[in-house]
Amino acid sequence: MVDLTELMENDVFMAFTSYTTIILSKMMFMSTATAFYRLTRKVFANPEDCAGFGKGENAKKYLRTDDRVERVRRAHLNDLENIVPFLGIGLLYSLSGPDLSTAILHFRLFVGARIYHTIAYLTPLPQPNRALAFFVGYGVTFSMAYRLLKSRLYL
Amino acid sequence: MVDLTELMENDVFMAFTSYTTIILSKMMFMSTATAFYRLTRKVFANPEDCAGFGKGENAKKYLRTDDRVERVRRAHLNDLENIVPFLGIGLLYSLSGPDLSTAILHFRLFVGARIYHTIAYLTPLPQPNRALAFFVGYGVTFSMAYRLLKSRLYL
Amino acid sequence: MVDLTELMENDVFMAFTSYTTIILSKMMFMSTATAFYRLTRKVFANPEDCAGFGKGENAKKYLRTDDRVERVRRAHLNDLENIVPFLGIGLLYSLSGPDLSTAILHFRLFVGARIYHTIAYLTPLPQPNRALAFFVGYGVTFSMAYRLLKSRLYL
Repeated sequence: MVDLTELMENDVFMAFTSYTTIILSKMMFMSTATAFYRLTRKVFANPEDCAGFGKGENAKKYLRTDDRVERVRRAHLNDLENIVPFLGIGLLYSLSGPDLSTAILHFRLFVGARIYHTIAYLTPLPQPNRALAFFVGYGVTFSMAYRLLKSRLYL
Repeated sequence: MVDLTELMENDVFMAFTSYTTIILSKMMFMSTATAFYRLTRKVFANPEDCAGFGKGENAKKYLRTDDRVERVRRAHLNDLENIVPFLGIGLLYSLSGPDLSTAILHFRLFVGARIYHTIAYLTPLPQPNRALAFFVGYGVTFSMAYRLLKSRLYL
Repeated sequence: MVDLTELMENDVFMAFTSYTTIILSKMMFMSTATAFYRLTRKVFANPEDCAGFGKGENAKKYLRTDDRVERVRRAHLNDLENIVPFLGIGLLYSLSGPDLSTAILHFRLFVGARIYHTIAYLTPLPQPNRALAFFVGYGVTFSMAYRLLKSRLYL
């Protein structure tokens, strides 16, 4: 068996690992938030989910949508749409040998912006709080993509 | 050109490769399932998709939603929400030098739980079948995230 | 600090990096397209987003859905559903030591197909333009998955 510890001794890669694990865990928390609101507000998407609350027509009334649940779901989808590019581009960027302090600045800004985005979406805070958080995360990912395409384009 | 076979001779990484390829292929199958139900039930989201079934007003009646199609789409989105964290955290976990048997146990549980989740969602099986499958996959991903953050935090 | 330049000197991995960065940047552009249509058509999902257009009941009328916005959102979700498997399977495939010209053919076909898919979805072009673009991207990903599972299955 080959020793892989080499990759994990690289500082940039270790930092990427920590920040990515944190932001993906935060994204997974959105599933729990959706489940929490669905159960406390009795708002379900599937008949089998509310079978315990009554039979037949009685249960069907829980098959509805709710502002709060839809808000959490939009925040979750927005996370997916933004964290997937960060995951791919950030991984490749980490392996391209960037400067350590520049890389950590990118990761910190992204993770901070996405956590603030969730807070701004769920509170909800007035705009442009959420829009700014979105654009900071977006800009960080584009900055990493730009560096990758500028220095290592191979088509 | 550098030889990369080193990485692919690592047992944990090879196991991660196989399980990830299987679960991503399963997720891609959901697109086919959606297309199958859309075509057999004639339920479409875009006017151009049902142009072959009639012209003008005749075609518009196929622009509707259907319980079965929406169920497959929810299962697909739930896959995305859970497989993306597994992909990122699992890759980093595989590179962090875990014990082989522990790692394989994680991968097997996750892949088994997600396949069972799809079966429970599409059949549909009564709850708590789907909820349990969801939480097993969720727990596996958190267990890998916990190990990464505990042993290699670098902020 | 360990030198990682080795990985980035591998031709297949460099090509994967460039094509992945391009297609993830294209996917991120869909967020901007959604924002553009939401602002120009005044169609919003959150009350705080249209607070600037009026107060109370006046603002509520902008909380609606719109064909154009929904079309962009479907294209974006379809991107996510297809680019995530490409990201995972393509990364593992790139590390499995494939032939350079075969690998580049896979990446080019996928990126070309997904860009054409977006054009076909947003124009919209008549079917089967979009369906063909979808199946080319789908086939490329399955071809890489097949190679991974055939040569390196480890369960």
